[in-house]
Amino acid sequence: MDDVYVLGIGMTPFGRHPDRSAADLGSEAIGLALKDAGVSRKDIEAAWVGHVYQGMAMGQRALYAAGLSGLPIANVENACSSGSTAIWDAAMSIRAGAYDVVLALGVEHLSSMFRGALAPDPTDIEAQIGLTMPGIYAMRAQRYMLQYGVTPSDIAHIAVKNKKNAAMNPLSHFKKPVTLEEVAAGRLIADPLRLHECAPISDGAAAVVLISRSKLSQYGSNRAIRLAATSLRSGRTEVGLVDMTVEDLTWRTAEAAYAQAGIGPEEIDFAEVHDCFSIAEALRVEGMGLIPHGEYVSRVVKGEMDIDGTFPVNASGGLLGKGHPLGATGVAQVVELVRQLRGDAKERQIKSPKVGIAHCRGGKAQGVEGTACTVNILVK
Amino acid sequence: MDDVYVLGIGMTPFGRHPDRSAADLGSEAIGLALKDAGVSRKDIEAAWVGHVYQGMAMGQRALYAAGLSGLPIANVENACSSGSTAIWDAAMSIRAGAYDVVLALGVEHLSSMFRGALAPDPTDIEAQIGLTMPGIYAMRAQRYMLQYGVTPSDIAHIAVKNKKNAAMNPLSHFKKPVTLEEVAAGRLIADPLRLHECAPISDGAAAVVLISRSKLSQYGSNRAIRLAATSLRSGRTEVGLVDMTVEDLTWRTAEAAYAQAGIGPEEIDFAEVHDCFSIAEALRVEGMGLIPHGEYVSRVVKGEMDIDGTFPVNASGGLLGKGHPLGATGVAQVVELVRQLRGDAKERQIKSPKVGIAHCRGGKAQGVEGTACTVNILVK
Repeated sequence: MDDVYVLGIGMTPFGRHPDRSAADLGSEAIGLALKDAGVSRKDIEAAWVGHVYQGMAMGQRALYAAGLSGLPIANVENACSSGSTAIWDAAMSIRAGAYDVVLALGVEHLSSMFRGALAPDPTDIEAQIGLTMPGIYAMRAQRYMLQYGVTPSDIAHIAVKNKKNAAMNPLSHFKKPVTLEEVAAGRLIADPLRLHECAPISDGAAAVVLISRSKLSQYGSNRAIRLAATSLRSGRTEVGLVDMTVEDLTWRTAEAAYAQAGIGPEEIDFAEVHDCFSIAEALRVEGMGLIPHGEYVSRVVKGEMDIDGTFPVNASGGLLGKGHPLGATGVAQVVELVRQLRGDAKERQIKSPKVGIAHCRGGKAQGVEGTACTVNILVK
Repeated sequence: MDDVYVLGIGMTPFGRHPDRSAADLGSEAIGLALKDAGVSRKDIEAAWVGHVYQGMAMGQRALYAAGLSGLPIANVENACSSGSTAIWDAAMSIRAGAYDVVLALGVEHLSSMFRGALAPDPTDIEAQIGLTMPGIYAMRAQRYMLQYGVTPSDIAHIAVKNKKNAAMNPLSHFKKPVTLEEVAAGRLIADPLRLHECAPISDGAAAVVLISRSKLSQYGSNRAIRLAATSLRSGRTEVGLVDMTVEDLTWRTAEAAYAQAGIGPEEIDFAEVHDCFSIAEALRVEGMGLIPHGEYVSRVVKGEMDIDGTFPVNASGGLLGKGHPLGATGVAQVVELVRQLRGDAKERQIKSPKVGIAHCRGGKAQGVEGTACTVNILVK
């Protein structure tokens, strides 16, 4: 079984792109990833394309726009984990020995296609009566506050941190830091979560070129970063479970990744996690066993998860700051891990990281097991 | 690299199911496949789920309904090749050594969700001015008639054959044979194609349990059938190419499958092919090099592709007779190959087949490279 490396990365600016199509955004990310990898179009043997709302044959349209023709292409969907599922599947094909050089693309023109919280599925009875994504995370935040004695203002520090980081990321949706006071003055979305604590509706694309170890030597690249583990699991939202502050699904997914990588949580230097809401970041980092349950928020308040802190989280700006074009998000996280591990992250560079972890999850709000979670571990 | 076998198959009745959900249909197919394979729910390690229009986290919903919990699940979309792409991806995971026992499900509740030919994508300018799927296949039929001197009535024999076969398949959408006269009296959809020559809008699901050779011995199953090849390629519709009766994409996909299986077209005993329209069956069988270009229709007229003919095609009833729930179609084809190779096809049983081939393709009508094609080869 061959090791898998990320050879090249590419990402469009995240934000509103009213004049561009998803294929156009996808094509740009592909072009950048190929250039960064130093491979040509004809070197790519297959592609997996993650998106949620972009309709039939999205991947075929994006690859064609990028000048790639005739390939095996599979479109994959796993809600907010669609892009990271594309990486999971693409990596599998290299491990299978089927291909040596493949592409994983995540893309979403969300601003034109969003049919989520605003118009929930009429068959989703729980969402119809208020159990939407903001509602779920607000409940979980309330429980977290009660259980661990933190305040809405403490949780808001997560948004402040991520928007500060985003301001240093030229590809971010939001380029302006916000103060605690500005977060507190924001519109209340679902108590205690306010506007700045909710991920925006973004358009964008991100792509990675994956390569087998055996082929890597041909490219002589010392910029390649090893994808030491990629895991995918499904489960349900924690609302209604024993303790809605504990992410069993996140743990099961991370546990599988640690086993695959042969790396424990104590060896991870930094993380990109799925902060669709401020509180979500706490639930994920704790869920992966990286910080003990109930400690995350107070440690963010102390600055430990800042870029120059002991355990930087969402140095890219996260979903809250960098933006959240659903299908693109999981790939963009890996793009950030690679930038950081290469030492290419410029003013938001973390000091000498060796091992990074990325976490995504998403799915149906309703009480079925409709959530997909992915964890990727990258090693310099 | 481990060989891949189909251990179990399951399929719901195809047709209109106004009172059932896609998750319910998917769950039924999964249950049948597990039972047929003789494996339990906990033996399944991962699943790939093909569908087109069923919305977010379809696979998670179907597996949960079937009592399967916590697994890695990826939803895959490739238009009418979605189900066969799920098989392609699932087989890859076994070849990767990642899993030994996996599930591929195809599912579609098309009657409730169809947003295709009736309401073409407003950005698809070619479809807006008439280049819909029926329009494309009608043009190709016209060209085929001109080039090879066959008549609409000759082509209609394909529909007569497939509906005759469907009448022997208890899971078919259509249970009634039609005569040539009935086809000719049908409503004209796009000249020369009439109603009976167009695949219906069906709901349904089909599932297969795939297993590695190394694990197979544990189950001692002599009913397992080897998946000797599974290939996927992308391309464009042939309209506007040099000769629209020649399916270059189908050939490239089949050629890759022949190479993978180490089996040439001359060794194939029977086929399930993507007869979304009557003429399509001719284009596919010729496209795969199984019959010389221009000969297929006249050989159907002679009865050569009947169940008791020299080269049976669509013994299941095909898309025209068995029905076409988009995501389920590619898996249902493999279900039929397995039934035939096991000798379990009852009154529609082909005599002692050893090697079967399945072909799917589908995608956007428009002039970009939006078509996905799959070919699976199964060997007894």
